[in-house]
Amino acid sequence: MALLNDNYLKLKAGYLFPEIGRRVKAFCDANPEAAKRLIRCGIGDVTEPLPAAAVAAMHKAVDEMAVRETFKGYGPEQGYEWLRHAIAQNDYRDHGCEVADDEVFVSDGSKCDCGNILDILGAKNKTAISDPVYPVYVDTNVMAGHTGEANDAGAYAKLVYLPCKPANGFIPEPPKRHVDVIYLCSPNNPTGAAATRGQLEAWVNYALEHHSVLLFDAAYEAYITGPEIPHSIYEIPGARNCAIEFRSCSKNGGFTGVRCAFTVVPKSLQLATRAGEFQPLHPLWLRRTTTKFNGVSYIVQRGAEALYSAAGKTQVAALIQHYLGNAEVLRQGAIQAGLKVFGGVNAPYIWVGTPKGVTSWQAFDKILNEANVVITPGSGFGSKGEGYFRISAFNSRANAEEVSRRLQTLQW
Amino acid sequence: MALLNDNYLKLKAGYLFPEIGRRVKAFCDANPEAAKRLIRCGIGDVTEPLPAAAVAAMHKAVDEMAVRETFKGYGPEQGYEWLRHAIAQNDYRDHGCEVADDEVFVSDGSKCDCGNILDILGAKNKTAISDPVYPVYVDTNVMAGHTGEANDAGAYAKLVYLPCKPANGFIPEPPKRHVDVIYLCSPNNPTGAAATRGQLEAWVNYALEHHSVLLFDAAYEAYITGPEIPHSIYEIPGARNCAIEFRSCSKNGGFTGVRCAFTVVPKSLQLATRAGEFQPLHPLWLRRTTTKFNGVSYIVQRGAEALYSAAGKTQVAALIQHYLGNAEVLRQGAIQAGLKVFGGVNAPYIWVGTPKGVTSWQAFDKILNEANVVITPGSGFGSKGEGYFRISAFNSRANAEEVSRRLQTLQW
Repeated sequence: MALLNDNYLKLKAGYLFPEIGRRVKAFCDANPEAAKRLIRCGIGDVTEPLPAAAVAAMHKAVDEMAVRETFKGYGPEQGYEWLRHAIAQNDYRDHGCEVADDEVFVSDGSKCDCGNILDILGAKNKTAISDPVYPVYVDTNVMAGHTGEANDAGAYAKLVYLPCKPANGFIPEPPKRHVDVIYLCSPNNPTGAAATRGQLEAWVNYALEHHSVLLFDAAYEAYITGPEIPHSIYEIPGARNCAIEFRSCSKNGGFTGVRCAFTVVPKSLQLATRAGEFQPLHPLWLRRTTTKFNGVSYIVQRGAEALYSAAGKTQVAALIQHYLGNAEVLRQGAIQAGLKVFGGVNAPYIWVGTPKGVTSWQAFDKILNEANVVITPGSGFGSKGEGYFRISAFNSRANAEEVSRRLQTLQW
Repeated sequence: MALLNDNYLKLKAGYLFPEIGRRVKAFCDANPEAAKRLIRCGIGDVTEPLPAAAVAAMHKAVDEMAVRETFKGYGPEQGYEWLRHAIAQNDYRDHGCEVADDEVFVSDGSKCDCGNILDILGAKNKTAISDPVYPVYVDTNVMAGHTGEANDAGAYAKLVYLPCKPANGFIPEPPKRHVDVIYLCSPNNPTGAAATRGQLEAWVNYALEHHSVLLFDAAYEAYITGPEIPHSIYEIPGARNCAIEFRSCSKNGGFTGVRCAFTVVPKSLQLATRAGEFQPLHPLWLRRTTTKFNGVSYIVQRGAEALYSAAGKTQVAALIQHYLGNAEVLRQGAIQAGLKVFGGVNAPYIWVGTPKGVTSWQAFDKILNEANVVITPGSGFGSKGEGYFRISAFNSRANAEEVSRRLQTLQW
């Protein structure tokens, strides 16, 4: 009798974004006129067209595929050398971080990588996760059998939750207890917080001392404006011995529908076997990649490479400026509305405290009904997200300005 | 102390294709003149340019991404509805197979799907695998901890190997013993054999009786020429209750470098929980897909959709005819050379018995050194592949004809 993976049955049925979709649909069906002025600042999806350099490069790549002499079949599973080189050079070595070309693994998304990385880690690791947090970290651990059941608040047994709150700038401190695997996301989704050098140093030191591994999600790195904020975990001494970094072309090049990302696994990073012998993780990730993946589309990889050209860099910078400009407009609107406002400076997300006595979902419903704006309720990201909501800055400037105005008209 | 996944350490280091690459490189370095006439019939990668319909569709999609009004961000993780519909209609319902649009999950490759499917299956299933076999089925089970160690012949403890040989037409019979998960590949890589209706009926009946699940890899379905050979497992009554099917655009549309495939999970397929309760598998695969994947590139999905247009179908048929024509040329060459020849009629692979006393790798070396042709040694696909080699028909016609000639000049 073939068995299914029972761990999936532990997953909470109501995933955040489907529930948002359900409420928005119900509102629009009941209010067809108001639906016409609906503005979506919920899901973190880009809105502006692709950089021209990527468009040109993908057209050229499609043409190459149309001619026998330049046609490309299977590429290297871990990515073409020219793209791995462009990434390692531009994103790391040009900023003083030691990352070799073959430590970069090109993939079709950071979401995939964050989930797939568990394949090469042991099943008995004690895992720590921020609260609030990107739900994928939690759900992939549930699926892999690394947790017990969820309690009524949605917290899973066996996971260690690290609270993020105003007092720690929404970046958790290393715990007193031992943990093996730690997810960090900076700039943070959903809170928009960016970890300082000191905060990252504390985590690297903890990981080195405890022989832990840091899974560092830097998908929003391009939004960092503070000159003192590290862009990569590898800016911290010792990180090459304890950290894996995830990055993406989704939020800088606008590739959410194009699909390209990458993971860095330093060759100096070693974890223990059950027998207690330390072995490098790099060969395991290479083996996983070559066995369970067939590489990113050649056309897409050429598009990603173009983001690193001179023109591509200028165009990406303009996109980031556009979204950060929106973030500032939204931040000021929320401040003017008398709300407690965090994030939005080093990230495309504004994290807003609800007025006293108002829950995240109550705020969601009020903003939907009265301002006709879709935001994301903070409690969807974990119990410590209760009392907050997230506004996404991915929009047109006109929409950001309109949302800013509407927020100021709300009576709480 | 964070642990790595020890199961990876059970994997045999010498994966087939890297070893082939090493020997070819050594030969070319030592014989620069002969290297110029080298013809590669090893790895199963297409050589002809993309169908014009796919090229046009991808150009159009790239242009859409360049304009705000038509820009596409995140798509549905399981694929756009228009592509799922085109697949379900053209590949299944038009051929009398009941498959609903939302039973089709679009992915970036069958290799990925064949590996990822293990995520939703239990850890204690008894797994049966053909011998010889596509190495990914075995290796992903090793990584997931479903096997013991490998013996000297490369066979892993706990796996049930089903021998494929001339007597069973290289399609294994259901075993006498109980197994939970069965991998079937038809038309077969590497043997080129295609399962008859009777053979598939025997497997479906076995699976229904044993509450097993069939993982049916139909990546080479387009190469079937025999009118009596089923193209889909769902042509067999009862299969919707016991089978998952994998298909790909790689070998029909030439998408090995473009990346698009799909998996069908019927909603009627139920497996047991540990408590012995039967539950549908479809929600688990949907949850896995939405949590650990972010969909195939919009541009690629538009290219795949174009393969189902009238022009696309004609162009795909021409590609298949080209490769099958090569297969016939190669098959006749090997027959003329006095070798025992299988496959090549319903598949782009010819499976050739080595002369008596010659091992697969000895044949590989001789053909490389004397004919300057790269083939794949059968033993690389499993112990029962010893005494065979695989010739791939993915090539230009001129190369296929030249290989056919050279095979006939060899003195064994």
